[in-house]
Amino acid sequence: MDAFQSLCAFLQIPSVSTNPEHRDDCRRAAEWVRAFLIGAGLEDARLIEKDGRHPLVYATRCESPGKPVFLIYGHYDVQPPDPLELWTSPPFSPTVRGDSVFARGACDDKGQVMILLEALRRMGSALPINVKVLIEGEEETNGENLVAFVRDSPGLLRADAALICDTEMFAPGIPTLCTGLRGGVFGELAVEGAAQDLHSGVYGGAAPNAVEAVAQIVAALKGVDGVIRIPGFYDDVAAPAAAELQAWRSLPFNEDEYREREVGSPELTGEAGYSVLERTWARPTLEVHGIAGGFVQPGFKTVIPAKAHAKISCRLVPNQDPERITALLREAIQNATPRGVRSRFDLISAGPASLVDPSHPILQAASRALAETFGRPTVYMRSGGSIPVVDLFRRALGIPSVLMGFGLPDDNLHAPNEKFYLPNFHNGIDAVQAFFRILGDPRDV
Amino acid sequence: MDAFQSLCAFLQIPSVSTNPEHRDDCRRAAEWVRAFLIGAGLEDARLIEKDGRHPLVYATRCESPGKPVFLIYGHYDVQPPDPLELWTSPPFSPTVRGDSVFARGACDDKGQVMILLEALRRMGSALPINVKVLIEGEEETNGENLVAFVRDSPGLLRADAALICDTEMFAPGIPTLCTGLRGGVFGELAVEGAAQDLHSGVYGGAAPNAVEAVAQIVAALKGVDGVIRIPGFYDDVAAPAAAELQAWRSLPFNEDEYREREVGSPELTGEAGYSVLERTWARPTLEVHGIAGGFVQPGFKTVIPAKAHAKISCRLVPNQDPERITALLREAIQNATPRGVRSRFDLISAGPASLVDPSHPILQAASRALAETFGRPTVYMRSGGSIPVVDLFRRALGIPSVLMGFGLPDDNLHAPNEKFYLPNFHNGIDAVQAFFRILGDPRDV
Repeated sequence: MDAFQSLCAFLQIPSVSTNPEHRDDCRRAAEWVRAFLIGAGLEDARLIEKDGRHPLVYATRCESPGKPVFLIYGHYDVQPPDPLELWTSPPFSPTVRGDSVFARGACDDKGQVMILLEALRRMGSALPINVKVLIEGEEETNGENLVAFVRDSPGLLRADAALICDTEMFAPGIPTLCTGLRGGVFGELAVEGAAQDLHSGVYGGAAPNAVEAVAQIVAALKGVDGVIRIPGFYDDVAAPAAAELQAWRSLPFNEDEYREREVGSPELTGEAGYSVLERTWARPTLEVHGIAGGFVQPGFKTVIPAKAHAKISCRLVPNQDPERITALLREAIQNATPRGVRSRFDLISAGPASLVDPSHPILQAASRALAETFGRPTVYMRSGGSIPVVDLFRRALGIPSVLMGFGLPDDNLHAPNEKFYLPNFHNGIDAVQAFFRILGDPRDV
Repeated sequence: MDAFQSLCAFLQIPSVSTNPEHRDDCRRAAEWVRAFLIGAGLEDARLIEKDGRHPLVYATRCESPGKPVFLIYGHYDVQPPDPLELWTSPPFSPTVRGDSVFARGACDDKGQVMILLEALRRMGSALPINVKVLIEGEEETNGENLVAFVRDSPGLLRADAALICDTEMFAPGIPTLCTGLRGGVFGELAVEGAAQDLHSGVYGGAAPNAVEAVAQIVAALKGVDGVIRIPGFYDDVAAPAAAELQAWRSLPFNEDEYREREVGSPELTGEAGYSVLERTWARPTLEVHGIAGGFVQPGFKTVIPAKAHAKISCRLVPNQDPERITALLREAIQNATPRGVRSRFDLISAGPASLVDPSHPILQAASRALAETFGRPTVYMRSGGSIPVVDLFRRALGIPSVLMGFGLPDDNLHAPNEKFYLPNFHNGIDAVQAFFRILGDPRDV
């Protein structure tokens, strides 16, 4: 089976980690990865399970004493495919159109996991470094199994650095390393007013409306100018260095194209005085992911809703403390809560931003490997997203992470018609091998 | 079968007009009313049907030449019983607990329709006035069938006044006539931002968020002080006369009890400087009945939602023009729409407030009939709700409506455990007969 066929087999497993109906599929995906690793000649391949959570897959190839040890990380679980009706081809029937393969997980993260696995398979016993492979199944939920395992097993995971393929290239053909990720505070706002929904004719004008209250709270947290109105929120924000900002300005970025092709809205939004890249990579944000309350079926029911809720997150940048931001957010919610209702913010998860120093020798090696494979200089970007494992590896294992990504900005992550650009898949396999070869050559690192 | 048994048989028919699955049940309810009217000796009893909509029931007894003609109105359809799990006994299995019968429609409006029908049955050929009975099946949806029929059949419906039993008593034991109803503008706000939901990490800070936009619009339309922020909204509001306000102040009303027993919230809300009765009867309001957008399932999905919507209504008081308010509301929504999104307000229905002059001889007759039956002076109240048929009868037929209601404030209209207080049911039957006797005696009107 060639690499593409393997990828398609992997993509056919609907390993949706957040949905209990797919529990067995997640296990199948883990078993599939383990079998591939055994076939690729790795040792000690096994599933690590705890409390009925989705298993981790672990394997090693440590046959190069004195050479660097890399922790290879990825995830076999995927986002839910909903809304299904917007997919052109079924999400778990990988389909090639043009130069891309379309399927849930094609880019995030099965396609990129396959790059790592296939590079290891091809190098076989010629691998000039040591690797410990750790592929998890809860990245799209909350990764508790991984956190516990990493914290409890520093010896088993001891390494010099981690290699993660779960980010994207700045643009097609431009080899890219990611040097920063935003952190985040994620939680749920719940508002309660009257004891039950009330008739809006009879009680309108006297009874509190929980839906209006949740709207008022949300509107109070961020202005229409995109500036977050939580007192103290921006206090600790560390701005990027002048050189980093300068490098971003030289990246080929067209704001109109971005708006039209990626966002598709009449205008872009956000804080004045910052470029789009600064706003999405280096400025903290607050977003509401969902809101619900009252009667929303077709037709009309004139109730004053008694309950409403919203899912809210803040993305954080370097130097912002998730605990402090959580406290400030809670306080701002309380201050914005109108009379007549009670509000509550339940924290779901929180983690800080991550930065990687591009002058680190390992990053330099990665940069060379990518540039040689793609035939162009490697660029450095940040990502506005959050990969909590980067911070976990830094804290628990004391190691930096190389974020070598092969996705593209239009790969529809977490959205219908997710895809992976196949030239990136094949170049990625070459680039990872080139990286390992450079790392294995003492003259090069 | 006695009146209570008849009521129970009527309540067992799940005539939920908004739900297509109950189409046949609505027809059964209409047939049941027609059969009862035939049994009560009325003539020309028939179903009036159009375009597959729920039938109207029509019948007459016009055997008293020279006497007033009354148009007797009610509705056999009911609200959906959801949420079912909050009912103590099944909504379509009428159950007596204490002095009340619990069932969907017990008060709104089958119990009150039965008062009218049973009063006619008991008077039989002794009825001293003329009646035309019109019972509809779409009051809880949009009543299009009724509107068309009333507009097209002024001759068939010619009358001196209408009698409607679909309102409530101010408090148990206090005979009540309703002299005013609020009108309303009802519609749906839709907001669209990006072409599809986007990853909040990757695009947070640059892409518009439709859920935040809908919250900002809602928050802009009404302040946390309960004052509506739509320019011009209050311009035409007609305040109640000093005498009417004075009468309301003498009604037995305890704000703490109202808050605790009826609303159940930590505080009441609404405009400062107006009593609860003024705020709910004589001040216009704006309420959001439901809001939806983005990811609201259990768990977390960090999307920037591309679409959101909210159901919104304004209740209107005398002298406010629904068309003008609709235009002002649309304009305010446009002005509050943040950049990056498009908004749209789709009107569902609109109608003006209604007032009845309590010094009208027919109202005076109703007041006497109620006072004699209940043994206490009749009070005059308004209702914050909307009964569009009152305005329809005024415009299309040129007649006033007598709103003689027998519900109670805690009857749970549109909510779980709807009930009807049985002493009111029996007194209501007596009061309607007393009213007809007074109307039929030339010395009395």
